[in-house]
Amino acid sequence: MSKLRVSSFGISMDGFGAGPAQSREHPLGRGGEALHAWAWPTRTIQRMFGKDGGTTGPDEDFAASGFANVGAWILGRNMFGPIRGPWPDDAWKGWWGANPPYHVPVFVLTHHPRASIEMEGGTTFHFVTDGIHAALARARAAAQGRDVRVGGGVAVVRQYLQAGLVDEMHLAITPAVLGAGEALLAAIDLRQLGFEPTRHVGTASAMHVVLTKAAQPVG
Amino acid sequence: MSKLRVSSFGISMDGFGAGPAQSREHPLGRGGEALHAWAWPTRTIQRMFGKDGGTTGPDEDFAASGFANVGAWILGRNMFGPIRGPWPDDAWKGWWGANPPYHVPVFVLTHHPRASIEMEGGTTFHFVTDGIHAALARARAAAQGRDVRVGGGVAVVRQYLQAGLVDEMHLAITPAVLGAGEALLAAIDLRQLGFEPTRHVGTASAMHVVLTKAAQPVG
Repeated sequence: MSKLRVSSFGISMDGFGAGPAQSREHPLGRGGEALHAWAWPTRTIQRMFGKDGGTTGPDEDFAASGFANVGAWILGRNMFGPIRGPWPDDAWKGWWGANPPYHVPVFVLTHHPRASIEMEGGTTFHFVTDGIHAALARARAAAQGRDVRVGGGVAVVRQYLQAGLVDEMHLAITPAVLGAGEALLAAIDLRQLGFEPTRHVGTASAMHVVLTKAAQPVG
Repeated sequence: MSKLRVSSFGISMDGFGAGPAQSREHPLGRGGEALHAWAWPTRTIQRMFGKDGGTTGPDEDFAASGFANVGAWILGRNMFGPIRGPWPDDAWKGWWGANPPYHVPVFVLTHHPRASIEMEGGTTFHFVTDGIHAALARARAAAQGRDVRVGGGVAVVRQYLQAGLVDEMHLAITPAVLGAGEALLAAIDLRQLGFEPTRHVGTASAMHVVLTKAAQPVG
């Protein structure tokens, strides 16, 4: 059964999934890089950047499982790049260079149409202008039975949560204090949405919590 | 230097310091007992309830340090008991029996005056009707150089935070999901208040984070 998943999503101890004042230089907002401090040293992320080594252990296990069995991604436009409004040209192709770390179809939510971009390594960026349900339908079809991962940012994760469409969510709660920014869970009632914590692991860098949606009663 | 401290304060992974629907039967609200699951097994809390044994390790260290060097406490009225409005009589003397676990003066914030109550074991409950600053002044005087601990609940901690009066805060972030209730940090900017995470420890039950207020520039 194909799931819609949020994985390896870092939030600060005060609840923010991105810091304030996002910009091209600081795509995660002020202080936002601290949300990923647990993941950077892991083997999965180090390999993604072409490096040998990297840590093993629970942080690595979570980083790796975030990519396992994922057949398509959904990203918000701000996670794809810093450009706002209509696309001025086709020059921007994401933050990740010629061979992005997805290696499957990636559906980018935007209000502004643009032709798909085929990248090296199996990643194709598709631009979806007709909303989160349409993006999910296209991603599910592309995933061919594997899971669809919502990569972010915060606003996109919130939309899928609020629509009741997320099946599983792994959050990495970090000891960082951001103070302001985008609060991931503000005014979202995870219990009412049916989520229960089904696993948690504390490491030196984060508390990992896996939330799973209870099977809905039929009828 | 006497500090105003919040210690061993449990919050859910979605940010709540108490669950919804608080009552005499459920003083922490629905699901709220999960916020203290990390502390119950510890030696400090087990001894508080007259039992031998209890766990040692980081959870115990945090539980114990929450009581160390505390010369007075401040509690909100709802943490003292379930009665609302004027005191009907002097029958209610707290949730904790004849010998409460404080053993120092405890200042209870209320809008309704009441005579102080001297309990066994060194605890005296004083009822303060003229606000958080007055309560702090009285608590500091009573603490005689030791720290003052704000015990809660959420609304009282928030008031002291928002007034910029808290010097140090230890939160135990737990894997519990409450979904609703009292959000401890909503609309409170910890960075603007000067807090930095100075220590964190992950255990099987919680992520402990100690936040310390940076020294304010003089002038």
